[in-house]
Amino acid sequence: MLKKRAKNILDTLGNGFNALMVFKPENIFYLTGFWGESVALCTHDGIKLFVPKLESTRAMNESKYSEIITAERGAGLIKSVIPYLPKHRFYSDCSEYETVQSILPYTNNSNFVINEYLFYNARMFKDDSEIQKIRRASEIIDKLYQVCSEEIRKGVTEKQLQAKLLYEAMKLEGTSTCYPFTLNPFIIAGGANSALPHFETSKREFIDGDFIVVDLTLRYDGYISDATRTFALGNVSHEMSQVYDLVKKSQQQGLECVEQGVECGKVDTACRNLISNSGYGDNFIHSTGHGVGLEVHEQPWIRPNESKKLSKGMVVTVEPGIYIYSKFGVRIEDTILVNEKSNNDLTLTKFSKELLIL
Amino acid sequence: MLKKRAKNILDTLGNGFNALMVFKPENIFYLTGFWGESVALCTHDGIKLFVPKLESTRAMNESKYSEIITAERGAGLIKSVIPYLPKHRFYSDCSEYETVQSILPYTNNSNFVINEYLFYNARMFKDDSEIQKIRRASEIIDKLYQVCSEEIRKGVTEKQLQAKLLYEAMKLEGTSTCYPFTLNPFIIAGGANSALPHFETSKREFIDGDFIVVDLTLRYDGYISDATRTFALGNVSHEMSQVYDLVKKSQQQGLECVEQGVECGKVDTACRNLISNSGYGDNFIHSTGHGVGLEVHEQPWIRPNESKKLSKGMVVTVEPGIYIYSKFGVRIEDTILVNEKSNNDLTLTKFSKELLIL
Repeated sequence: MLKKRAKNILDTLGNGFNALMVFKPENIFYLTGFWGESVALCTHDGIKLFVPKLESTRAMNESKYSEIITAERGAGLIKSVIPYLPKHRFYSDCSEYETVQSILPYTNNSNFVINEYLFYNARMFKDDSEIQKIRRASEIIDKLYQVCSEEIRKGVTEKQLQAKLLYEAMKLEGTSTCYPFTLNPFIIAGGANSALPHFETSKREFIDGDFIVVDLTLRYDGYISDATRTFALGNVSHEMSQVYDLVKKSQQQGLECVEQGVECGKVDTACRNLISNSGYGDNFIHSTGHGVGLEVHEQPWIRPNESKKLSKGMVVTVEPGIYIYSKFGVRIEDTILVNEKSNNDLTLTKFSKELLIL
Repeated sequence: MLKKRAKNILDTLGNGFNALMVFKPENIFYLTGFWGESVALCTHDGIKLFVPKLESTRAMNESKYSEIITAERGAGLIKSVIPYLPKHRFYSDCSEYETVQSILPYTNNSNFVINEYLFYNARMFKDDSEIQKIRRASEIIDKLYQVCSEEIRKGVTEKQLQAKLLYEAMKLEGTSTCYPFTLNPFIIAGGANSALPHFETSKREFIDGDFIVVDLTLRYDGYISDATRTFALGNVSHEMSQVYDLVKKSQQQGLECVEQGVECGKVDTACRNLISNSGYGDNFIHSTGHGVGLEVHEQPWIRPNESKKLSKGMVVTVEPGIYIYSKFGVRIEDTILVNEKSNNDLTLTKFSKELLIL
């Protein structure tokens, strides 16, 4: 599988382009199985993986199809690939301004094209081995919601629940996804905190009358699954239960839309119309979903007016939400595998979406 | 403190430069207290923080001195700062090639200078509030080594120990540092695995005769501490105990070198010479240390020939190691605060470095 991936990308290049220079850890892992500090150079003859000395034995163990070449760290890694620049015509995922500046003098723009999307486009279609890992990450997430249903009670803090969940996840070999724009592994938001979609898990204790949004992203052997459930503690007001039902129906309509050939924007519309028609349009303050794989957020984007079409093998989230400032929020999210026909059994995360009052 | 930080950087600019455009989450946190998806624009009049709608309330709560401006996500964030480009002369930490390309047409090179080091240079000197957080992260790490001494035994796997340690850390509000070149939060390497400095924590069970390298990086309220201890399980060979003593002495010599005015390269030499003179020079396959703060590795670099001088308020690691391929490895590391005079009490991580045979 790994061997085929670089070949598949190389085959799409055309115009005499015949090589890839790969910098992002996710793309290198996708092509070689090694996650670490390195640069990969792929041609139809094979993959050369440049790694610092302290990584070389690990790279040999983890990337059996690559030729491992030991180099210095940091700028030294870049130096070691420069001699190859005149030999090929490259596409690269290089996104660091400084690295690009250090490479360009040794080539010219017509022989070195920067295009991250080439890699995102390939990674958008998951093969069986990738789906298997996302499936496993999803199973672990389902178990964590079971833990939530046992551990959420008055007086427990968001951070205590978070610690417990990550511990259970790690015992099952799940790890944090390390999304770069947060300091916490999960979003756990109780009471008024749940009205903030990207709340940073705090020391607030759960109290009677809380909605508790639990947004779990989890990695298993590199691959990520992403789900959200909203739990209730004690008394639920009429407004809360109405909003919960609305988000649940909205998510259901979105999931039913997910099949090959459907424009991503249509899935967003399916979720959003129901919420807007019920008067909560201004309270749904994010897009409906995103692709998921080696990164938490990757192509395709499930958002308004997105014309890209879903295809078999994509894995996406559907996650509408309603947020009532200073009171509560509700979000319900699953990760789902796209197939020829819409089918709710294709959600990879399967924990109940009935309102669970604890 | 936060308010002073932007002003201090602005004061160093000169040549009519009067503004900062800040993109990296670490730098934005440093200047505003908010960690998330955003762009910060700093002038002597104050800080404008551009955030997507779903982050705006959190940004208001976490960044009290900034004016919060709501924008679209992703490319929309960049669009919202473009109108400000003609109004000031900027320094920026912008490192994304694509973002730079989208900004440059609206300004010219003489009004928009990309210089990450400006921010690293400021962050290199820790103020009291930063030192306090690194100190707390260090205390948590010390507690985790206590846990290691209780939990390491035959049959326990590296991953099991890792899960337990992260759980204990999170109960004390420590979080993973999310170093981008690894899938695991910690390096836990037993037996022959310990010969790989950046080993990815595995399911291998500890056995009699193991050295177990436990390298813990941990974040507390944004700030990181970093330490390594090497534990022994059961029988320790003569070679193992000799190598352990050598690394311990080497690290001690390095620590004794750490004081204001000393070239970083001298600390590296102090550690390396002892190891080289004992015939293990080729087995010390990484540099001696690095600065630590909002990132695991930041300036200054403790490596051969580094002429940069240590100054009061820097926080650095000293971490020599010896790696015997296919047999074992030893690394001992502390995070230490630089002061006017060398003083071993300035190590922030304080767990015993005597060989602990479990």
